[in-house]
Amino acid sequence: MTLEILKLGGSVVTDKAIPMSPNIDSIKRLANEISKADSKELIIIHGGGSFGHPLAKDYDIINGYKSDLQLLGFSKTRQAMIQLNSLILNNLLDANIPAVSINPSSIIVTNNKRIKNVNVSVLNRYLQTGFIPVLYGDAVLDNKRRFTILSGDQLAVKLSILLKVERIIFGVDVDGVYSTNPKLSPQARLIEDLSLKEMKDIIKIGNALPTDVTGGMLGKIKEAEKAVNFGVKVLLVNALKPDYIYRALRYENVISTTLKR
Amino acid sequence: MTLEILKLGGSVVTDKAIPMSPNIDSIKRLANEISKADSKELIIIHGGGSFGHPLAKDYDIINGYKSDLQLLGFSKTRQAMIQLNSLILNNLLDANIPAVSINPSSIIVTNNKRIKNVNVSVLNRYLQTGFIPVLYGDAVLDNKRRFTILSGDQLAVKLSILLKVERIIFGVDVDGVYSTNPKLSPQARLIEDLSLKEMKDIIKIGNALPTDVTGGMLGKIKEAEKAVNFGVKVLLVNALKPDYIYRALRYENVISTTLKR
Repeated sequence: MTLEILKLGGSVVTDKAIPMSPNIDSIKRLANEISKADSKELIIIHGGGSFGHPLAKDYDIINGYKSDLQLLGFSKTRQAMIQLNSLILNNLLDANIPAVSINPSSIIVTNNKRIKNVNVSVLNRYLQTGFIPVLYGDAVLDNKRRFTILSGDQLAVKLSILLKVERIIFGVDVDGVYSTNPKLSPQARLIEDLSLKEMKDIIKIGNALPTDVTGGMLGKIKEAEKAVNFGVKVLLVNALKPDYIYRALRYENVISTTLKR
Repeated sequence: MTLEILKLGGSVVTDKAIPMSPNIDSIKRLANEISKADSKELIIIHGGGSFGHPLAKDYDIINGYKSDLQLLGFSKTRQAMIQLNSLILNNLLDANIPAVSINPSSIIVTNNKRIKNVNVSVLNRYLQTGFIPVLYGDAVLDNKRRFTILSGDQLAVKLSILLKVERIIFGVDVDGVYSTNPKLSPQARLIEDLSLKEMKDIIKIGNALPTDVTGGMLGKIKEAEKAVNFGVKVLLVNALKPDYIYRALRYENVISTTLKR
């Protein structure tokens, strides 16, 4: 048996344009695809999208404590994520998946925005007992800033290393990594295989430019690089297209980008 | 500053007669009472009532693993509790309380139905940062039985000992401990002060009888005895009567039972 992580982006499980609006069709379809794929050892992680982000921004949670007024904002951001997570859980249960949600902020305290360590003993026990743990990007306590935002991408990569995961599948709203931003340029070409060297080049160019030429992919590639370096296989798949995630989970051929060493 | 635990019974936050029905009026009123009392160091714990209990019973979660069919039942019980907790959290946030919920089942694994230890480091950090942690009775993993049910009462008492809490206030649906079951007997007399010796007598008599003469109080007294023994003050207060919890939190006079050494 091989443990895998399925990370579903915030733009897949929510409608990013409207605050607090889930993408119910997408959540329901993905729950059924995951159920049909019947993966035995799987961790699901989802992003915040229109649930976590607007509140986190309003209260500037990511940069940490400045005033006591932020405490309620932290609580509200955390609670918005619990509501999105609960909605996803309900759909997983409806698809007969024995899912258990774990609040990242109940087990993780970051160190200046980065996860230093995670106590994975309970998480491991859930996996061994036959459950599918579900985590998410969350508002968390931070050693230096009192609190911050932990992205689902960072969490997925850290867990993949700590738990020696076989593969991370990033379910995103495009077909993979493109030569240029596919939402802006019709000439954008999908890159099927991306090496560590090429990733480093993308990160270098991305850091030098004022906007993210990869169309939101830069942060993901920066995180994913660490997993690839460690030996984890990383796949980027369009989770908005029916059966793409199912095919990826089943190791079937699917349009995607594979990140390789 | 003195840390306190407020435990709200399942019969206070839900309507026990109808599955999955919260007592919204009671939750909203209590959120406002807690806000008005303005306790600085407080942990709130609530019971399962009509959310956790029916599902836990249907799948016989309390006695542990017998078949894989229970896995989905465990997940559903856990999720029902998250939904009740979420509803309570929303009302606490509406009352401007910086509450953060912590799934007990994300941090606790019991040992044959009893909590052996709890990693309280994240919980402590929330308290230090100015948050009000909210926990609840939950479906949890168990070392011997794979999984079981952890009562909010056991959790409240264990945390009171681990965190050296000043006082536990049990918010219940009666005025305190009676000489006999007040729901059955009009002669029942409220006991204002109950000593450890008297508690032991009640437990002895209760254990010998087929039904709980204390009207559901026996289990609570059995757990509470451990806290009293440790030196924690324990108060039983009617949380269904307006302002009783507020008065208790403010150390004002209120009809109640105090458990003493």
